[in-house]
Amino acid sequence: MKKNIAIIGATGAVGQELLAILEQRQFPIQSLKLLASKRSAGKEITFKNQTITIEELSHDSFEGVDIVFSAAGGSISAEYVPSAVKAGAVVIDNTSHYRMDPSVPLIVPEVNPEAVKGHQGIIANPNCTTIIMSLPLFPLAKAFGLKRAAVCTYQAASGAGVTAMDELRDESIAIAQGNSFERTVIPHQYAFNLFPHNAPYNDGSADAEKVNAPIGYCEEEWKMVAETRKIFNDPNIKIAPTCVRVPILRAHSEAINMQFDKKTSIEEIYKILETAPGVQILEEPNNNRWPMPIDVNGKDPVYVGRVREDQSQENTFDIWVVGDQIRKGAALNAIQIAELLI
Amino acid sequence: MKKNIAIIGATGAVGQELLAILEQRQFPIQSLKLLASKRSAGKEITFKNQTITIEELSHDSFEGVDIVFSAAGGSISAEYVPSAVKAGAVVIDNTSHYRMDPSVPLIVPEVNPEAVKGHQGIIANPNCTTIIMSLPLFPLAKAFGLKRAAVCTYQAASGAGVTAMDELRDESIAIAQGNSFERTVIPHQYAFNLFPHNAPYNDGSADAEKVNAPIGYCEEEWKMVAETRKIFNDPNIKIAPTCVRVPILRAHSEAINMQFDKKTSIEEIYKILETAPGVQILEEPNNNRWPMPIDVNGKDPVYVGRVREDQSQENTFDIWVVGDQIRKGAALNAIQIAELLI
Repeated sequence: MKKNIAIIGATGAVGQELLAILEQRQFPIQSLKLLASKRSAGKEITFKNQTITIEELSHDSFEGVDIVFSAAGGSISAEYVPSAVKAGAVVIDNTSHYRMDPSVPLIVPEVNPEAVKGHQGIIANPNCTTIIMSLPLFPLAKAFGLKRAAVCTYQAASGAGVTAMDELRDESIAIAQGNSFERTVIPHQYAFNLFPHNAPYNDGSADAEKVNAPIGYCEEEWKMVAETRKIFNDPNIKIAPTCVRVPILRAHSEAINMQFDKKTSIEEIYKILETAPGVQILEEPNNNRWPMPIDVNGKDPVYVGRVREDQSQENTFDIWVVGDQIRKGAALNAIQIAELLI
Repeated sequence: MKKNIAIIGATGAVGQELLAILEQRQFPIQSLKLLASKRSAGKEITFKNQTITIEELSHDSFEGVDIVFSAAGGSISAEYVPSAVKAGAVVIDNTSHYRMDPSVPLIVPEVNPEAVKGHQGIIANPNCTTIIMSLPLFPLAKAFGLKRAAVCTYQAASGAGVTAMDELRDESIAIAQGNSFERTVIPHQYAFNLFPHNAPYNDGSADAEKVNAPIGYCEEEWKMVAETRKIFNDPNIKIAPTCVRVPILRAHSEAINMQFDKKTSIEEIYKILETAPGVQILEEPNNNRWPMPIDVNGKDPVYVGRVREDQSQENTFDIWVVGDQIRKGAALNAIQIAELLI
């Protein structure tokens, strides 16, 4: 039952986390092939005390491979995933490229594991903000019917990769010491600053026609709508997203305001969340202490707390959700999908 | 027409900004008295090239004073403001102590300047998050009728004072360099971290009876509801707030989602905001560039942009608002109130 595995983009933030989780979860590996660009080829990575040399990614990389994790960006997936499928591998794609393809299942294993059955060689891993929101939202929507959810995100540097995390650290030191700093990854000052998410934005111009978001939205926001509809298998689900990048390293926080169809209560919501798969309640209400990014770094569950009743609208409640963007938001979810295959 | 002025808490973040703005706006000052605790008394501060020695605050500090700015905390205001009023001064109180007192006007000069007429010696300055939200929200609510607003905040260290700002800088350097850091001001790690606002929280226990917020809310959040109702003179206004502290130095950002009674459009909303007093539109939609905390540091207006139509609910729109917490969120608003008096 051991599998031949390949990882595209093994040196990135998600690639590194994939390796760590494959080891931690004792994923049954027969062979492990690490694929990357020419630039990284030849570098060595240690996995389970063995040294693996990174190979240059090519269309011929996939012979004999059972499962490919593709985590090097949408254009790389677009070019190489078809070759992997042709070679007989199942690809779990961590990029946005195939997510909305009707022939490709989009899976959060705690939400729609059954969708794995319909795959035709490619399974897509949802965007980080969508995965993190879906874990508490799905069981609540199932129990009480979701009329509408409005969500504001507080997103970390890791969504833009290891280099963005390093840049945030370096820029923070420079700015705090009163020095100047030259950025190369993030378009705006990020240390001690924040901004609406810098994903492609639809400003209504002809140039923006290719942006996968309605006018006034960026793609990061619209993923939370479109992907959630696909994962929940409900094309009418109503979500109002606002995505913001904040100077945090690797965890996304989300403030979710939910109006339900059925009448419910704080107690009933906690009851659902307490047994929701992938969700962990973390709070000390008497200390006004709720999940924080530093709590969740390197942790598997999405931490949830602070269930409140909205005083401004009937049958409406707030939750506060924090998840590790690299782990459950990307690498862990992909490996859980692979576990559904075996 | 020149006034005798006193400032309680001149060495704090708001006190320092009060002095800077009094000078910048050429406020007509006859004399300036700086009052502080015993600890700060004797220190010297330069104002308009003159050296002023800080005096120890006492109940006898207010003889001959026309206008007092009180910015040293609620308990200091509670103790000394009555003495100032008794001595014949008008007090503009920057603390929360008198805000909800029915005999005390609560004023944002761009919104309800007429309320100044009813004062009985004390005028309250609203909380920073309330002031910043009110500038764009009031003219929109007036034009289109506000059914409900949901707001998520991204709040800076400055709300907790100069020491919190210094601590955030120092902690950021330490954490980025992999060193440990001992905090004394903020209860949680603040560098590269965030948390629901640490204002007093109502957890429903007997201990929480004195907290001015419904169960599940902190006082910072409930100020946005109660103060806005008082300033807008509309006890039925519906606001759903979520307040979060993020590692930013001195500007608060707010994502506001508004459902209106009357049908409107993005264009009509921009038209109102373009002429709204105290509001400045700052955006480059074709660059996905909106107001950021670093844009607004030291600036008078509240910067607004990113008007979007919510796709999930009829007649609902989003705006993105950023204001300098120390300036318009506190000191500038107080001085504008003083200007209404002269």
